Amino acid sequence: MSEYRAPLKDMQFLLHEVFQVEHLWSQLPELAELIDKDTANAILEEGAKLTTEVIAPLNRNSDEQGAVWKNGEVTTPDGFKKAYQLYCDGGWGSLSGDADFGGMGMPKMLQAAFEEMTQSASISFALYPMLTAGACLALAAHASTAMKTTYLENMYSGIWSGTMCLTEPHSGSDLGIMTSKAEENNDGSFSVSGTKIFITGGEHDLTENIIHLVLAKIPGAPVGPRGISMFVVPKFLVNSDGSLGERNTVTCGSIEHKMGIKGSATSVMNFDGAKGFLVGEQNKGLNYMFTMMNYERLGMGIQGIGATEVSYQQAVAYAHDRLQGRSATGAQNSDKAADPLIVHPDVRRMLLTMRSLNEAGRCFSTYVAKQLDLVKYSDNVEEKTKAEHLVALLTPVAKAFLTDMSYDNCGLGQMVFGGHGYVREWGQEQLIRDVRIAQIYEGTNGIQSLDLLGRKVVASKGQLFGVYQKEISQFIETHQANEALSAFIKPLQLSLTKLTELTETLLSNTQQDKNLVGASATDYLAVFGYVSYAYMWAMMAEKSLAKTEQDDFYQAKLYVGQFYLQRILPRIDSHIQAIAAGSEPLMAMPADLFIGP
Amino acid sequence: MSEYRAPLKDMQFLLHEVFQVEHLWSQLPELAELIDKDTANAILEEGAKLTTEVIAPLNRNSDEQGAVWKNGEVTTPDGFKKAYQLYCDGGWGSLSGDADFGGMGMPKMLQAAFEEMTQSASISFALYPMLTAGACLALAAHASTAMKTTYLENMYSGIWSGTMCLTEPHSGSDLGIMTSKAEENNDGSFSVSGTKIFITGGEHDLTENIIHLVLAKIPGAPVGPRGISMFVVPKFLVNSDGSLGERNTVTCGSIEHKMGIKGSATSVMNFDGAKGFLVGEQNKGLNYMFTMMNYERLGMGIQGIGATEVSYQQAVAYAHDRLQGRSATGAQNSDKAADPLIVHPDVRRMLLTMRSLNEAGRCFSTYVAKQLDLVKYSDNVEEKTKAEHLVALLTPVAKAFLTDMSYDNCGLGQMVFGGHGYVREWGQEQLIRDVRIAQIYEGTNGIQSLDLLGRKVVASKGQLFGVYQKEISQFIETHQANEALSAFIKPLQLSLTKLTELTETLLSNTQQDKNLVGASATDYLAVFGYVSYAYMWAMMAEKSLAKTEQDDFYQAKLYVGQFYLQRILPRIDSHIQAIAAGSEPLMAMPADLFIGP
Repeated sequence: MSEYRAPLKDMQFLLHEVFQVEHLWSQLPELAELIDKDTANAILEEGAKLTTEVIAPLNRNSDEQGAVWKNGEVTTPDGFKKAYQLYCDGGWGSLSGDADFGGMGMPKMLQAAFEEMTQSASISFALYPMLTAGACLALAAHASTAMKTTYLENMYSGIWSGTMCLTEPHSGSDLGIMTSKAEENNDGSFSVSGTKIFITGGEHDLTENIIHLVLAKIPGAPVGPRGISMFVVPKFLVNSDGSLGERNTVTCGSIEHKMGIKGSATSVMNFDGAKGFLVGEQNKGLNYMFTMMNYERLGMGIQGIGATEVSYQQAVAYAHDRLQGRSATGAQNSDKAADPLIVHPDVRRMLLTMRSLNEAGRCFSTYVAKQLDLVKYSDNVEEKTKAEHLVALLTPVAKAFLTDMSYDNCGLGQMVFGGHGYVREWGQEQLIRDVRIAQIYEGTNGIQSLDLLGRKVVASKGQLFGVYQKEISQFIETHQANEALSAFIKPLQLSLTKLTELTETLLSNTQQDKNLVGASATDYLAVFGYVSYAYMWAMMAEKSLAKTEQDDFYQAKLYVGQFYLQRILPRIDSHIQAIAAGSEPLMAMPADLFIGP
Repeated sequence: MSEYRAPLKDMQFLLHEVFQVEHLWSQLPELAELIDKDTANAILEEGAKLTTEVIAPLNRNSDEQGAVWKNGEVTTPDGFKKAYQLYCDGGWGSLSGDADFGGMGMPKMLQAAFEEMTQSASISFALYPMLTAGACLALAAHASTAMKTTYLENMYSGIWSGTMCLTEPHSGSDLGIMTSKAEENNDGSFSVSGTKIFITGGEHDLTENIIHLVLAKIPGAPVGPRGISMFVVPKFLVNSDGSLGERNTVTCGSIEHKMGIKGSATSVMNFDGAKGFLVGEQNKGLNYMFTMMNYERLGMGIQGIGATEVSYQQAVAYAHDRLQGRSATGAQNSDKAADPLIVHPDVRRMLLTMRSLNEAGRCFSTYVAKQLDLVKYSDNVEEKTKAEHLVALLTPVAKAFLTDMSYDNCGLGQMVFGGHGYVREWGQEQLIRDVRIAQIYEGTNGIQSLDLLGRKVVASKGQLFGVYQKEISQFIETHQANEALSAFIKPLQLSLTKLTELTETLLSNTQQDKNLVGASATDYLAVFGYVSYAYMWAMMAEKSLAKTEQDDFYQAKLYVGQFYLQRILPRIDSHIQAIAAGSEPLMAMPADLFIGP
């Protein structure tokens, strides 16, 4: 397995040239003094060292060895403990944490770049701090000051970790039917009972304490999702002086044996009257959890980018090294028995597909991170509101589209290796197995697509979509006269028109056909994603055009972007046609006929 | 993991109703006396018993346990030996073997159905007899009578197995650069030396002897693929009385650790002056191997169908059992906390995608098997020639399109299970890992697409395509007046026109752009596959229309077929657009710019 190199140059291009963060940050009071271009670059370079030199080398073994459960305890793979210590020592757990409680308060745009490197290095490893960061976010947003004081600092520092306990054996996508119970004690604490499954990092040996955020129902609460509350249930109770107290009655019953992310402990957690503390108000747990989920969902998209980056780097190296066949236009390497794979158009198709989707994906996740930063830091109401709308609209796209593309991309990377890609030692097949989960957890991509089309587009009567559509239209208008950019602007304009028409058609038809949202959602999200990537490519091209003489990097951007627009973007037409067929072809067949002959 | 049920009803529908084998076989002299409808059905039912009751239960453990190499010996997973014995006792290894040498001489159409069941039961297990069957085919077609007498009977009976030794560490898709050598001995035998990798069943504990078919170069032979000869290299030399003699100098150096098919021993074979016997003439080895490869390639497609069938059966059962969420049109299951997954349009989309592609795939593989039977058994020159053309044209499609669809389908099956699909015990993730190899081995699907477009369509100047196009056109013409069938005929006609135009455009442009074949091949094969499936659905619908009152089975065919035409077939338009962009977007970027920033 070849080494991972952090794509710092592309990350810096996005931050400094495409999104011009120095200007952006200088406008945001909390960031203006905190960070500038040099600091950002220095942080990324340090992040690159940690992830490439310390974490990445552990990844292959972590798959072979896996996390191991024994008598309720979980041992993480060799090296994870030491790497985690270095991660914490470097302050990486606090990077974007709340500055009032020990965090560094750095913007999400920077955090996102560092997260990508961590995911590239090892998805199994990255999940441990990722869940902690998400739990911190939920607490920072919704917990009382006392609770934040008790937990946040140790979680930012990484001495303690966090989890998110939602799923139950019979309750996954449908959280409203969960049965975990929380009964109030005399002292205002709660006794939490129930079984939670698929809990990432539910038990492990990396930290002194594990802070579980648990969803459960208080007896008498409303039926369904509106009756769910959130509780902090620490593995070890915390004394009033902050020291660790009694072991709580929460135990890890087992860990799952999975397709991938074998170094990540996916735990069955049994809460047996465990002592818990209500976060915020009763019955608002699901809303609170969404604070965390939205964070995690962008993180899943970033996980996808990280995996594809590694797959691409390895595949491209192999395509240059491996000699097989001859170029159709005559030998390129006539002193050797064969030409390198890179001469073959079909190999280039696979590599360019991976790269054009992944560079657009990185741009898109940075764009969404920018919106998150504006929501958090902007004091301009209009700007903040627009950013809130974009976050709501784009989060399901960032989660589902990026991970769908990444799974396919890692498949292409494996295919470049042929049979060698199927053999474990090369690492390509592990990327597929690891990144596959990103399409499934934190709400399956099917659920994301329903969120996008149902809850975001249709429920807002197109308002959220309008915000995005308007921004892209303005970009097009601004650059319409730029002849040099027209090969990017024209396809963007055409595809945006198609997406807008599709959206309008769906908005007017969903009333009379209740199944139309469900029948269209997955294809709609794909169209939305591809058009968004066309927007990303147009933005990147606009910043690259003038600099092609200066650096091949910019020339490559134009080549890869053109490949995207000409060979990938046409995929939207098939999705649009599939949607146009309506829900009838899906709903007509009686359920019992699905059972095959 | 739920049980596998053999889809006998669908198989019988294809054989007896769609392709009317009783009539077909009665016209073919060698088959007329051998087999009729009842015999065929009895064979399939026996095959179903063996595969569902004996082989399928071994599959899950075979993945966990794997084949194990120790000191050059390979132990297959628990139960494989006993199951293999029952397989041999049932005569399954000889099913379509040459009757002059101990085979049963049954048609490929029947063999294909049995093969699918074996692949559904366990791909790892199925590979052992599959490679033997392919080796037998190459020997039956090209070896001398003496050689056939020596080897075939014991291979049909399963006492001995066979392999195909092509790939070398530096020579995979490009076999012309192989370096394995075969030097002639005084007695007319050869000394074969070299290392072969990725040899399925190269070593194992199932049989008394292993007959390797090895490609190697005789010193002085022409450079490249025209200098390759084929040799029989038995693990144990065979004495003139047929008994086993000396151990040959071929050894298994190791087996690969792979993404899937862990129960199949993928071996590194070292030939160290091993005694080998030339098959047929010198330097024709690659042609001979293609006899076997073509057989294996259809077999790979069938492997894909087998995997999807299991994934679908399990996913559909889960979609009926698992209660999650409510129907968009109101509760369907109001006495329970939630409705079954099957009420959700997006779940139906996944299931119908799997089923519509897989039933078309089964029809297509039966159709290709029919052509193989006509090539073998027909004494009508015109019919035989047409069938030869169709086999040449459709083999790469059967290999690549069926396996591409199957990998995606098994992904959908896993997704229906959500997080449970990612956990090993449910078996869904194993199907993905196992079936993935089918896209890679026996010539990657990229190689298949080059074979289709380059060697079959373009090299024949469209002649082979014309044979197929004409047949479909005739079908359309025959049924044009059938109003009830028009929902099937119209989309078929429209898509065939698009495929024909695409083919003509490519035929006229490949001369001036040498990279156009490579740049278009993968997308072309996809369009070809989807249009072929539209043809299959029209054929199946035509036989189902009149019987919908008689049996739900026929009604389901119409629903599933309509889903295919309305929601899947539109995919061709995106592929056609991608091809229309030409090779420029692929070839423009200099090779060194592929290395990322």
